[in-house]
Amino acid sequence: MTAPLAKYKIVDLTRVLSGPFCTMLLGDLGADVIKVESPGGGDPIRQQEAGRNGMSWYFATFNRNKRSIVIDLKAEEGREALARLIREADVLVENFRPGVLARLGFSAERLQELRPGLVTCSISGFGANGPYRDRPAFDFIAQAMSGFMSTNGGAADPPLRSGLPISDLVSGIYAALGIVSALLRRETSPDRPAEHIDISLTASMTSLLAYVASHYFATGEVLPRAGNDHPIASPYGLFQTADQPIAIAPSDTVFFRRLATALDLPELLDDPDFDTAPSRIRHRQRLNGIIEARLRTSGAADWIDRLNEAGVPCGPVYDVAGVFADAQMKAQEMTITAEHPEYGEVRMLGFPMKFAQQPCVVRRPPPLMNEHASEILDALGIEADKRHRLAGMNEHPLAANPNEA
Amino acid sequence: MTAPLAKYKIVDLTRVLSGPFCTMLLGDLGADVIKVESPGGGDPIRQQEAGRNGMSWYFATFNRNKRSIVIDLKAEEGREALARLIREADVLVENFRPGVLARLGFSAERLQELRPGLVTCSISGFGANGPYRDRPAFDFIAQAMSGFMSTNGGAADPPLRSGLPISDLVSGIYAALGIVSALLRRETSPDRPAEHIDISLTASMTSLLAYVASHYFATGEVLPRAGNDHPIASPYGLFQTADQPIAIAPSDTVFFRRLATALDLPELLDDPDFDTAPSRIRHRQRLNGIIEARLRTSGAADWIDRLNEAGVPCGPVYDVAGVFADAQMKAQEMTITAEHPEYGEVRMLGFPMKFAQQPCVVRRPPPLMNEHASEILDALGIEADKRHRLAGMNEHPLAANPNEA
Repeated sequence: MTAPLAKYKIVDLTRVLSGPFCTMLLGDLGADVIKVESPGGGDPIRQQEAGRNGMSWYFATFNRNKRSIVIDLKAEEGREALARLIREADVLVENFRPGVLARLGFSAERLQELRPGLVTCSISGFGANGPYRDRPAFDFIAQAMSGFMSTNGGAADPPLRSGLPISDLVSGIYAALGIVSALLRRETSPDRPAEHIDISLTASMTSLLAYVASHYFATGEVLPRAGNDHPIASPYGLFQTADQPIAIAPSDTVFFRRLATALDLPELLDDPDFDTAPSRIRHRQRLNGIIEARLRTSGAADWIDRLNEAGVPCGPVYDVAGVFADAQMKAQEMTITAEHPEYGEVRMLGFPMKFAQQPCVVRRPPPLMNEHASEILDALGIEADKRHRLAGMNEHPLAANPNEA
Repeated sequence: MTAPLAKYKIVDLTRVLSGPFCTMLLGDLGADVIKVESPGGGDPIRQQEAGRNGMSWYFATFNRNKRSIVIDLKAEEGREALARLIREADVLVENFRPGVLARLGFSAERLQELRPGLVTCSISGFGANGPYRDRPAFDFIAQAMSGFMSTNGGAADPPLRSGLPISDLVSGIYAALGIVSALLRRETSPDRPAEHIDISLTASMTSLLAYVASHYFATGEVLPRAGNDHPIASPYGLFQTADQPIAIAPSDTVFFRRLATALDLPELLDDPDFDTAPSRIRHRQRLNGIIEARLRTSGAADWIDRLNEAGVPCGPVYDVAGVFADAQMKAQEMTITAEHPEYGEVRMLGFPMKFAQQPCVVRRPPPLMNEHASEILDALGIEADKRHRLAGMNEHPLAANPNEA
C-alpha cells in the first residue's frame, strides 16, 4: 500500500498561505515536499501567531509533511543547488510575482531543460495574464475583487470579508487539484507531457459565485445581500431558542412539513401564506416569528435532537472551541497531534479527505527551518565545501552533515 | 494532446451542488461524466433560479461537460442498467445519505465485483463515521457547525454565513482532488488498487479554520470576530474615498511605509504609535481616521492606480456586475458561453485552473434531462425492449435510438 503521491518529489518555493496549503495537501497525499526557504527568517509565517517552544502553530497548520532547506536564490551556489533539486523533481510550485522566477534564471524553457516533463504551478493574486498581473495581492483584495465579499452580510451592511483567508485556501486546493491532474496526464500519456498551471486567488474565488453569477448572467440583476437568510428558501437561518441560537435549513416543502410537525405547529401547514416556497419567502418575517416563539420554549440541544429526529437539517452555531469539543468532529479526527524531537508536541487541523485504503497520515511534523538541509544536499551529492553560501552569508548554520564533522 | 482525465468514465449519482460541482471539475478536466438523474424531474437544481429557454442557468453553472441519462434506481431494470454502467466506469460519485446506495443493492463489495479497481467517492453533510452520520445536512448547517460562520462579521454581530454555498463548493473541490489522487495511485501501482474517499461538508470547512484553529490549539483562546479588520494587521480593511470604498491590505511594515508614501503622509512614518505592527493594531482607529481623511480627497479609481503603482495591495469591492465588467476578469475569461442546439446560448463561470498545454474547454453544454440516454444505452448494448421501465413508468419519454423508429 502506498500513498497516491508517494513517488513524486515537489520543489516548493512558496511562502505564507496559498502555496504552502497546496503543497501540504500534496504532502498529506504522500509526496516528498521540499520546502525551499529564504535566508533571513524563512517563510514569514514562522514568525506569526501563537506557538510553543519556538514553533508557530499557524506555520504548523500549513507545513506538516514537508522537509525544509534554506537556499539563497540570490547567490550563484543557491541557484545551482535549486537546479540540482529541480533535476530530480516532478513538480515545482511557486508564488513569486509573475516573472520573478524567470529573472532568477529559471524560465519555463530552462525548467524543462533541467527536467523534461516537469509540472509547474504558479499561484498569484490575479494570474499571469491581464492588466493586473503585476499587482501585489493578498487574500483580502481577492475577497473584495472576486465578488465574494459582496455576497456576505445583510442588505444594509457593507460587504464583508470572511474571517478566514478563504481565497488563499481555495486557490491552494485548486492548485493541488491542477497539479495532481497534470501528473495523471503525464502518467497516462506516452510522451509524458509537461504542464504548467496558473492559479490566481481572485479567479479561484470568482469560480465560486454559483447562483449569484448565474442569476446575474441570466437576468442582468445583482441579487441583494441576504445576511443569514436564504434568498430562495424560507424558513432558513439562525433562530433563538431558550438558550443558544440554532441554524435551521429546511430547503423545500417536504422539509418544511417535517419542521412544522416536529415543532408541533400543525397550523403552519394549513396556512395559505406558507404553502409554497415563494409564499413562505414573502411571509418570512411572520413565519420566523411563529417558529421562534415556539423554539423559545426549550433549549438548543433539545431542539437539535428533536428536529434531527424528524429529519430537519439543523445544528448549533459553533465557535472554534465548540467545533473541537463536538463528538462528530472527534469521530472525524479533525484535530491531530504530531511530536517533534526538538520542539515537542504540535496540534493541527485534521485531514479533510478520508481515504479508506490509504489514509492521509502525518509522516513528518512541521519542520524547523533548514532542518533537512544535510540529508537533502547529501542526496543531491553536493559536497560540504560547496555549501558555504547556500543558506546566505553567516545568517544561518551551514548545512553540513553532522556525521562529517 | 489529451486532457488529463480523457480516458476516465465517471458515473455521477449526485444532485444539487457539492457532488455536481465535483463532477463538473472532473468533466472540465476531460472525464466522460455520465449524470444519472432520477425520474420525476431529475436533479432538483434544474427547477431552481433564473434561466432561459427552459434551461436553469444555475443548473448550467454546475453541469457542463456531462451527459445525462434518467434511470429509475427503484426499478429492477434501472438497477441493472446502473450495474452495466459501473462495469465500464472508473469512478462512482454519490451524495446519498450514508447507507442508501448499499440498500439499493450497490454495497462496496458489489461495486468492486462489478468493476475491480473502481474509485468511489461519497459526499455527505457529516461523513460516514460518527454520531451524526445519518443526520440530514445542507450547506448552511455545515457553515454553522464547522466554525466558519463564527469567524465572519463584527464582534457585536451574530455569526454570519457566506452568501455563497461555500461548504458545498469547497467539499466539491476536495472530492475532485481525492478522486484524481486515487486515480493517480491506481495508475502508478502494479495492482491497480481501488479506493474509497469519504468527504463531508462540515469537515471540509473545518479544515479551513487556519489561524483561528491554530490560535485556539496553542492558547485555548477563541479569537473574537473582527469584521473587515484583520486581527494581526493594521491598517487593513475597507476605507472610504471620495466616491466608492476600497480595500487596502498592507500586510507588514514594508507595505505600510509604501502606503504612507503613496498617500503623501510622511508624518505617519515618524509617529511612534505606528512604527510596529502591534502598535498600529493598538492605534488602529486613529490610524484609520488619518488614512480615510486623506483618501476622501480623491476617488477610488485614482487611489487604486496610485496605491498599486506604489506596490500597496488594494482594490475595489466588486459586486457581481463589477466583477464581470473588470478588465482582469475578462482577460482571465471568467465567463464563458456555450451553445446548445435546443435551448441555445448559456453563459457560465469560467475555469479556475489555467493549464498552459491542455486548457479546460466546454466540450459539452449543460445537458437536457435524459439527453444522452440513447447513445449511452446503445453503447452499453442495452436493447430497446429492455428500456421500458428504465426512466420510470410513463414519466419520461423512453430512451430509444431515434434511428431505430
